[in-house]
Amino acid sequence: MIIKAEKYGIIPGEHKMLSYRLIRLIQDAKRLTAGDAVEIQFQKGIYHFYPDFASESLLYISNHDEDTIKRVAFLFEDLHNVTIQGNDSLFLFHTEIIPFVMRNCHDVNLKGISIDYTRTAYSEAIIEEISPERMILRIDPEKYPYIIRRGRIYFYGENFCCEPTGWLEMDRDRNAPVYGGKDMDLTEQSGIPLRWKCLESGLVECTIEDENLTFSDCSEIGNYLIIRHHPRSHPAIYIVDSQRINLEKITIFHAVGMGVIAVRTSDILLDSVHVKRNPDTPRVFTACADATHFVLCDGKITIKNGLFENQLDDPVNIHGIYAKVNRVLEEKEILLDLVHHQHKGVEIGKCGDRISFLDPESMLPYAENSIQDIQMINKDRILLKCSDKVLKIKPGTVVENISIVPEVLIENCHFRNNRARGVLLTGRGTSVVRGNIFEVPGAAILVEGDMNEWFESGAIKNILVENNTFCNCAYIPEWGRAPIQVTPGAKKFTDCYFHQNLFICNNRFLCFDHRILFARNIKNIIFLGNQITDTKKYPPIEGEKYHLEHVGNFCTSRK
Amino acid sequence: MIIKAEKYGIIPGEHKMLSYRLIRLIQDAKRLTAGDAVEIQFQKGIYHFYPDFASESLLYISNHDEDTIKRVAFLFEDLHNVTIQGNDSLFLFHTEIIPFVMRNCHDVNLKGISIDYTRTAYSEAIIEEISPERMILRIDPEKYPYIIRRGRIYFYGENFCCEPTGWLEMDRDRNAPVYGGKDMDLTEQSGIPLRWKCLESGLVECTIEDENLTFSDCSEIGNYLIIRHHPRSHPAIYIVDSQRINLEKITIFHAVGMGVIAVRTSDILLDSVHVKRNPDTPRVFTACADATHFVLCDGKITIKNGLFENQLDDPVNIHGIYAKVNRVLEEKEILLDLVHHQHKGVEIGKCGDRISFLDPESMLPYAENSIQDIQMINKDRILLKCSDKVLKIKPGTVVENISIVPEVLIENCHFRNNRARGVLLTGRGTSVVRGNIFEVPGAAILVEGDMNEWFESGAIKNILVENNTFCNCAYIPEWGRAPIQVTPGAKKFTDCYFHQNLFICNNRFLCFDHRILFARNIKNIIFLGNQITDTKKYPPIEGEKYHLEHVGNFCTSRK
Repeated sequence: MIIKAEKYGIIPGEHKMLSYRLIRLIQDAKRLTAGDAVEIQFQKGIYHFYPDFASESLLYISNHDEDTIKRVAFLFEDLHNVTIQGNDSLFLFHTEIIPFVMRNCHDVNLKGISIDYTRTAYSEAIIEEISPERMILRIDPEKYPYIIRRGRIYFYGENFCCEPTGWLEMDRDRNAPVYGGKDMDLTEQSGIPLRWKCLESGLVECTIEDENLTFSDCSEIGNYLIIRHHPRSHPAIYIVDSQRINLEKITIFHAVGMGVIAVRTSDILLDSVHVKRNPDTPRVFTACADATHFVLCDGKITIKNGLFENQLDDPVNIHGIYAKVNRVLEEKEILLDLVHHQHKGVEIGKCGDRISFLDPESMLPYAENSIQDIQMINKDRILLKCSDKVLKIKPGTVVENISIVPEVLIENCHFRNNRARGVLLTGRGTSVVRGNIFEVPGAAILVEGDMNEWFESGAIKNILVENNTFCNCAYIPEWGRAPIQVTPGAKKFTDCYFHQNLFICNNRFLCFDHRILFARNIKNIIFLGNQITDTKKYPPIEGEKYHLEHVGNFCTSRK
Repeated sequence: MIIKAEKYGIIPGEHKMLSYRLIRLIQDAKRLTAGDAVEIQFQKGIYHFYPDFASESLLYISNHDEDTIKRVAFLFEDLHNVTIQGNDSLFLFHTEIIPFVMRNCHDVNLKGISIDYTRTAYSEAIIEEISPERMILRIDPEKYPYIIRRGRIYFYGENFCCEPTGWLEMDRDRNAPVYGGKDMDLTEQSGIPLRWKCLESGLVECTIEDENLTFSDCSEIGNYLIIRHHPRSHPAIYIVDSQRINLEKITIFHAVGMGVIAVRTSDILLDSVHVKRNPDTPRVFTACADATHFVLCDGKITIKNGLFENQLDDPVNIHGIYAKVNRVLEEKEILLDLVHHQHKGVEIGKCGDRISFLDPESMLPYAENSIQDIQMINKDRILLKCSDKVLKIKPGTVVENISIVPEVLIENCHFRNNRARGVLLTGRGTSVVRGNIFEVPGAAILVEGDMNEWFESGAIKNILVENNTFCNCAYIPEWGRAPIQVTPGAKKFTDCYFHQNLFICNNRFLCFDHRILFARNIKNIIFLGNQITDTKKYPPIEGEKYHLEHVGNFCTSRK
């Protein structure tokens, strides 16, 4: 069964009502897919989607900033057996709108779509002059409109007006974070105070208003600044409580948040999904946050044949959520806290799921139970009814959903020039990272888990890292201690290990210094058949080749 | 059937979990009221309600600032035949929480409850020194904690931290807005720029950072400033889509928004509901906005035996909502815009309601139709399916729900010392205002309706104003041109009149100047048996005794 979008008046061009017509189209698709599978076809072209006549939904999106009602262009709820065939169209969005939401869907395919925004949620500047406490910046007022009032700068778009909260400096030649750079904090109460002044159209001066502070030594004329000024609010694709979602040939040039964020979803395929710079509107940044992010997802997570570059956070992050026990109410009833501000409103499981109670010091489990009923009291707190009596709880205990065991395959991807790290893996199953190229400023592979700051769970069983190329990674120490890093946050070591098995085989390490591996609190590391080459690309950063701390077995061929 | 709150552990004292226990109590009450009426009894005392473990709900509250999820202590949804008997208890709330929400309820009674907050959402200062561009203010840092950073002041509480957006100056002797005063705008982009400095604990200096601006001439040492710094977000009592709601002996000392706001509700009684200053914690302000407000309500609205004082907006406002036609989609289908930012998300009617199409120039109806189906596309826009074909629409046409015809009785109340006006009436039925005392700085009775700014509908049929005392009203011209003002916003007059009949009989007007009545675009005004006394309280303000403009008949006894 085929639905042609043009039948609904959804045609290329700058039409204001497309988001509204989509509502009608999706209503019909839902009715039709009660029987057969449906393919919705777009004729090739450039489409505009405005928030004005779009659907609206209250969304608590994990690892994003806001828990509010959002405008959504493609709002799929309870939709099944449907394919959107974009035929290589470009969908242009107007800032405060989420392109795709899938909630309670299964067997949905998105194909052949590029996503961009007319006005990005971040802005870009070029450093024209620099002294320790003063910079002159060139900002394109057409692409990145701003106003300066009373020494403060406001960047605005069709539907927002925000002050900068920070910036990241990008090397003019490499289009990547500068060596030795870091996030510049401009937030109101804790950041560096800047006074802004307009010199001429497109040329602004900013001066530090605190004589004890200066700009970074790493800053250079001609470098780009990516100026952050919008909340991480609108991912490009948000998938929640769904099954069997396939994204194929999807290119995300920009997102007001992450590229793809999936929550409590099983079996997700990203094939030839790219988060990359748009050659037609060259910007040094792509998505405002992670390229892809998977929270409490299971089944098979596959990411292959993708280019992920220049986004403002990690290309891949797969994790669960640790919830903290607030108190035991009755013998089978406990109240849990969602601690990290970007986990608010996220249910950590469903009836029947097994949960584990973990000691906050060792991060190791000391009891198990099952969820009989789960209810959000509010976005901060979860009421959990357990199947069995809850035993005595240690103070600070956290709860993990251990029924969620994703199998991960990340293959034939290219990760480069983004802020932060490469692939973050804390799934409980087996992850395979194979045949990828990593050119990232932080750790290329990061395996953590912590109960203090991010509350991203959990302990990994097996990770196989093979046939990848690691090219000058970890050149910004704040984002990584070595190309491969295993650093769960347990404060206390016991006879057991938090993580289990990490196999690092037949990879190529192109490094500018000695550091290859920084690992703690893991049972086995097999490091075999890897080739290490010295690039001399950057000044070396201090560190051991293999830093091992509470590692059960480390097996390597002695070269 | 009686439920005792103490059985749920809801007892007086500073207990953190009361909001959570309420959830349990309300669940039980709901189950029980399926059969009989239920009375929930609180033992007399002081109760604390924190947002931490409270219910949460997405609320689009009319005439409030935010359309977001809110914490609610008493969240009544689909609750019927229930009485809450507070037995003169004081319920203390912790800022970002709404005390009472009733949604889809009927036959609910609240009795014997006082409402206050531990930390108010606004703060208070006393002027210690003053020059044209500099003030020294005393602020109690215990009651109104603040911090000053980089020349900016932030007021904070348990769960908020906000910069001031404005202030209102209150006369030190009268505890009422100063004669000739007005709202001071301190908002970021359009307000007066102030630089704040801490002199000593509780003593701050603020200086205007623009040499062309000065403080008001009316400011005086010893006067109070009510400093606004929190959104109008959490009313004390929010009632929506309900019937037969009685509030009796309810005292609201503070609200982070309005005192009582009712939307699309019929038959509401407020008997001995007070919005008043708390004698135990003397503050010069009460609620942050209107004392009571009724939007799209019908049946009988009764307000009697109440004292409404010192709130930051009108004591009573009764109106509907004009929605603007955005476009005709199909012959029976139109898209409507909710224009005013505080009307977003408010449905203007239900299936079967009659609607009127009004000419934006004359504000008079030129066509009628009925609602066959109504759907919120998003909070800005409504999709309306009409029963009959929609005729040719004049540009700018607005739509009014004419099935909503409230009968209003306001009797034996005392209105004083608040910001702005007295009673605002734009209900379509008959309103009786009898035996009240008005001591307000703006118009005591205001009958408007406009399609440009507030979009508050509609045309009145009959208003009877009798046996009231108007005492030195309209001393701030911005808020009123005379004690009684009729000023609908129509730009064009025709042979018809927007409003119909206003009877002003047997009232006492104690006035400091000539002005009694300012009226336009109304068919009949009967002004009989009123007694007018000159008080010489303030310097007179220019204006006629009876200003009449496009008034069909004005009938008075010639004294």
